[in-house]
Amino acid sequence: MCPYRKRPLWRLLLPFVLVMGVMFAVAGVAAAQDTTPPDNEALASSINIIWVLVAGFLVFFMQAGFAMVEGGFCRAKNVGNLMLKNLTDFAVGSLLFFAIGYALMFGSDRAGLFGTDGWFLSSLGFDDGFDWAFFMYQLVFAATAATIVSGAVAERLKVSSYLIYTVFISGLIYPVVGHWIWGGGWLAQMGMIDFAGSTVVHSVGGWAGLAGALVLGPRIGKFNKDGSSNVIPGHSLTLAALGVFILWFGWFGFNPGSTLSGLNGSIGYIAFTTNLAAAAAAVSALIIQWVRGGRPSVEMALNGALAGLVAITAGCAVVTPFAALLIGLLAGGIVILCLWLIERVLRVDDPVGAVAVHAGCGMFGTLMVGLLANPEVMAFTQVTWGQPGLFYGGGFGQLGVQALGVLAVAVWAFGSSFVLFWVMNKVYGIRVSAKEELEGLDISEHGTIGYPEFGPVVVAQRGERVMPGTPA
Amino acid sequence: MCPYRKRPLWRLLLPFVLVMGVMFAVAGVAAAQDTTPPDNEALASSINIIWVLVAGFLVFFMQAGFAMVEGGFCRAKNVGNLMLKNLTDFAVGSLLFFAIGYALMFGSDRAGLFGTDGWFLSSLGFDDGFDWAFFMYQLVFAATAATIVSGAVAERLKVSSYLIYTVFISGLIYPVVGHWIWGGGWLAQMGMIDFAGSTVVHSVGGWAGLAGALVLGPRIGKFNKDGSSNVIPGHSLTLAALGVFILWFGWFGFNPGSTLSGLNGSIGYIAFTTNLAAAAAAVSALIIQWVRGGRPSVEMALNGALAGLVAITAGCAVVTPFAALLIGLLAGGIVILCLWLIERVLRVDDPVGAVAVHAGCGMFGTLMVGLLANPEVMAFTQVTWGQPGLFYGGGFGQLGVQALGVLAVAVWAFGSSFVLFWVMNKVYGIRVSAKEELEGLDISEHGTIGYPEFGPVVVAQRGERVMPGTPA
Amino acid sequence: MCPYRKRPLWRLLLPFVLVMGVMFAVAGVAAAQDTTPPDNEALASSINIIWVLVAGFLVFFMQAGFAMVEGGFCRAKNVGNLMLKNLTDFAVGSLLFFAIGYALMFGSDRAGLFGTDGWFLSSLGFDDGFDWAFFMYQLVFAATAATIVSGAVAERLKVSSYLIYTVFISGLIYPVVGHWIWGGGWLAQMGMIDFAGSTVVHSVGGWAGLAGALVLGPRIGKFNKDGSSNVIPGHSLTLAALGVFILWFGWFGFNPGSTLSGLNGSIGYIAFTTNLAAAAAAVSALIIQWVRGGRPSVEMALNGALAGLVAITAGCAVVTPFAALLIGLLAGGIVILCLWLIERVLRVDDPVGAVAVHAGCGMFGTLMVGLLANPEVMAFTQVTWGQPGLFYGGGFGQLGVQALGVLAVAVWAFGSSFVLFWVMNKVYGIRVSAKEELEGLDISEHGTIGYPEFGPVVVAQRGERVMPGTPA
Repeated sequence: MCPYRKRPLWRLLLPFVLVMGVMFAVAGVAAAQDTTPPDNEALASSINIIWVLVAGFLVFFMQAGFAMVEGGFCRAKNVGNLMLKNLTDFAVGSLLFFAIGYALMFGSDRAGLFGTDGWFLSSLGFDDGFDWAFFMYQLVFAATAATIVSGAVAERLKVSSYLIYTVFISGLIYPVVGHWIWGGGWLAQMGMIDFAGSTVVHSVGGWAGLAGALVLGPRIGKFNKDGSSNVIPGHSLTLAALGVFILWFGWFGFNPGSTLSGLNGSIGYIAFTTNLAAAAAAVSALIIQWVRGGRPSVEMALNGALAGLVAITAGCAVVTPFAALLIGLLAGGIVILCLWLIERVLRVDDPVGAVAVHAGCGMFGTLMVGLLANPEVMAFTQVTWGQPGLFYGGGFGQLGVQALGVLAVAVWAFGSSFVLFWVMNKVYGIRVSAKEELEGLDISEHGTIGYPEFGPVVVAQRGERVMPGTPA
Repeated sequence: MCPYRKRPLWRLLLPFVLVMGVMFAVAGVAAAQDTTPPDNEALASSINIIWVLVAGFLVFFMQAGFAMVEGGFCRAKNVGNLMLKNLTDFAVGSLLFFAIGYALMFGSDRAGLFGTDGWFLSSLGFDDGFDWAFFMYQLVFAATAATIVSGAVAERLKVSSYLIYTVFISGLIYPVVGHWIWGGGWLAQMGMIDFAGSTVVHSVGGWAGLAGALVLGPRIGKFNKDGSSNVIPGHSLTLAALGVFILWFGWFGFNPGSTLSGLNGSIGYIAFTTNLAAAAAAVSALIIQWVRGGRPSVEMALNGALAGLVAITAGCAVVTPFAALLIGLLAGGIVILCLWLIERVLRVDDPVGAVAVHAGCGMFGTLMVGLLANPEVMAFTQVTWGQPGLFYGGGFGQLGVQALGVLAVAVWAFGSSFVLFWVMNKVYGIRVSAKEELEGLDISEHGTIGYPEFGPVVVAQRGERVMPGTPA
Repeated sequence: MCPYRKRPLWRLLLPFVLVMGVMFAVAGVAAAQDTTPPDNEALASSINIIWVLVAGFLVFFMQAGFAMVEGGFCRAKNVGNLMLKNLTDFAVGSLLFFAIGYALMFGSDRAGLFGTDGWFLSSLGFDDGFDWAFFMYQLVFAATAATIVSGAVAERLKVSSYLIYTVFISGLIYPVVGHWIWGGGWLAQMGMIDFAGSTVVHSVGGWAGLAGALVLGPRIGKFNKDGSSNVIPGHSLTLAALGVFILWFGWFGFNPGSTLSGLNGSIGYIAFTTNLAAAAAAVSALIIQWVRGGRPSVEMALNGALAGLVAITAGCAVVTPFAALLIGLLAGGIVILCLWLIERVLRVDDPVGAVAVHAGCGMFGTLMVGLLANPEVMAFTQVTWGQPGLFYGGGFGQLGVQALGVLAVAVWAFGSSFVLFWVMNKVYGIRVSAKEELEGLDISEHGTIGYPEFGPVVVAQRGERVMPGTPA
């Protein structure tokens, strides 16, 4: 019935329609003539663009995974703050990587250290559609490095400090490392193999997180006077598990997508090694912790899966299936060892275990490439840089390059982040007050509550709200 | 061991196997002979089908995003109702768009107003596989328009009324607009540019939501007698944030997929403009609200991201990077302005801000195309209809068409929805009773509880359950 | 600033750089020469790999869907346990299917019963990249069958028993069925049509779940002494709904991906039938339950959607649109009937309805193929095995094969699982103690709490924790 009611309106518009219709018709004819099937080059280009884009979308979705893992492993009084940080590091990172980061990472090389042109993507044109897909793919990687940090500094870092930090990691710290290893810089020239970024992405995030956690100090209640530490349980195991599933899902874009080509026939193989290592690490972390603690730990199995994913990221395209299995099995132990070292030896409070997972297993996975890079696999996956690992007759050369890369990135990422957090802390203080921390950052920083209807939230007569964690 | 135990069973079946095996073998031989590699036309067709399908799957997943955003921003006593509405609008919409909607939208044109054939997809055959992928892609868009409404009418609309409304928006209101702009109708003939549906999808949903919210009136407790309004906080910021991440993820199918061709080399570019605008809007909404309210608002940053996504949807394939940035930055302010207008000036209660985000920013983004459509970008993305925007020498022509389209859609979508809700309300009342609203729709409409173990739920001796929101 | 600070370090590395740089340059030149566009065979192969991989990633994501559905439909005191089970069945399944399962399923045929070579994927080489994508796709299907079970045995099965069971279903029970129907085994030779696994995947999971639930017995409080049963509500409708949306999303990989070819032009059509059946089943389950119970049930609509998805899985590529609609409409009733049968007639306690959804609708959907398989559709989708259904002149032949397959799989999957659970139960007891069950498996099995800040959790002075469900 409705269309008839509207026909008078349409009649009023008739003159408009006639004038514009001619223009439209001309364009339509031009479009209709384009019926020649595309040539092989065009088809290949489309396949590459689609593959890189879809993989990049999956990597984008890892932002949701990190948000859920960090939210789930932290307390309810800080979830709004964590959600905001995970959203804004991607948003701010998108702007910074667009304006500066991409140019620093992929611009013309200045002595192997950083790129120097292409600011605001001025180097990208409308003649090659792949460039834009490539940018999107690189952007979501930069954002992954940035968002790792929010877990390590959770529950006590001011949102303003986090925003400033995000500008630096997206606009300087990450792109410089990216240039070194993926942008033709000095480590690339030496043949360092970090296929999908155990070091470029995960270690950078992990080291920056360690720097932030060190400058901040531990949360109130984490360590006792006698030096022992307490478990501060997260508020939702379901959200944490959902986050791990999302991250695992996204990693199928992260690693296989790093071929940067849909025509590379090995993308299924890379998905396979990625998955095998993740599975092995989840099982080994579960069993090791079961033996250690007498119970199968949900949290440790979740962290184990992430540990395996981070560890295989460097070598996913250069190792055999059994090597992937080995890397996974060991990663499940490495993450437990690192968690212990960081909490009990270094006495650093990393609420979600980000440093152990991303810096610890990132380093481990990168070094394993120096041992296990297999020439047959490299030929299959078209990894044309670097040398075979020590176990395949490659000598100590590749291992040395990997170690040098790990070390250089650790020094740069940890050093620059530490300086940044330290200076910010001196200038105006990056940590919320004890009162605000006890009350929760959602109330103190944002004036909101994550779950106003759940938990022992008391809305007192005078309008004061008391959240879990507040001393009675 | 087990297979041996079963071998006797298999022996009994031997005659069967022999008879059927022959048939199978014949088919197998036929299949094995098909080893000629496909020609370029077949390859191109496959690339297009895969791209449109994968993009459509991402858009489908936005249903989960809307469910989480709406659930998170509403109270726990109504989440079951919201989940059901978000599920059934997709389910009912799938049936209606299959039966009627697609024919109205893409059938043979009747005076530019609506299609008139192809009911129950009778126009689709088994000779062209792309048609079915195209239908799926259009279906998920129709469902997006429908599901936007559930947020604006949340926490008080009966589920029966929502189901009836869903039939109309999927089977009539949306397809008619779709025909006008995407189905060769009068606005298409005038060259209106709404690349991925700021107006076709988002404004339609937003206007219908406004109509529903107006007919329903505000929730109990939203407005005070002195005209001031209260914040009714949602029950879960983590769910709301998860929803925004899912929506952002799904938008990478929504906008780049709207090329309807995987061979269009600009899909990476469209993903890029989409992302840049979303990021800019999240940052600008955060900062504007920070300045206004003195605190960085989690909720506003989340809505800002959605605002940017909605606003760039019309122009994602026709604007330059800097124009996308500008649209995003402005959208972050527009959404705050619209939220204020709707709540404080119009005094309409839209629990999740759906009208501001989808109608407000949808209009804004569509109009910006009339200013900022860039001919160079249009050549790259193969947008062959419409004219350049005012800023690129296109005169007022395109801006006029955009404005006319925005207006016509507003009149049609708001008008028809208002009539529908108003008539339903007169006939039997579309709003639950005050008692039911206070108790929560989960109990009153569905006899269930969203979170029976959480929150101040009291199961009294007489079996009565008291939910949050009930006066003491 | 920072790069300049680091330049001295770089200078120290100059000798390294020069030596390695030469090697890198040689490789680079070799790579740069490869500019011939790929031939049609290579393009076709890439399209197939990408399609199968992307579809497989979606199926992987269904693990998250199952975790959320099961978590949401169970009580808060057991969510950690459920998350761990859903994670480890995928992890353990990945290892087992890699080591044994794939070989049993696709190895050289031994009398139609199981494969006998290719252990540890020794049959896969680096010459064909598709093989690895194919393995990944098969792996995620195996994991789906495994994870279905965790819902039926939820809230009372020990984690150790679940891990042992997982080894068997991934390494033996599922691969044997897979070989029968998809690996060239006796049912394949008879022409059984189970396109994407209503029987292979869903019935196997459902039957194994029934076996586990039978051996375990009902949860404390499920059945009363007079034989009536109680509803034990799940703890989160939002998580359950999120899970259903994720599963629906993942099913777009499950069914269309089962073409195992991106060049198959019918993938859009298969997505369409899948979606139509799911939508129809959600609506019919909603309406049937509305009529039965007087209220629209959120839980039943969610289960209805899953029922439709399971039911259409066998026939998604062989039935017409109207047949898909019919299968969906009936599935919405079948699942309600099966839920009633299992709970009220068999008196089996299946906390999430997994047996009704997966075994009940899996059987139903597989049988419907024998009635409704359409030769025109089969030609379009290139299903070259089996015969048309009864309604299309195919006689009782295909229906007989379908029924035989359903029966054989039921006997094998239920029988082997029952024996396994029964033996494990005799040997050491697979069920947690009554005290542990009341306390919740999270505390008793894992020493953790899913939501330590929510709900009526009381941390008593003596360190005892009391969870919902504990008698006062």
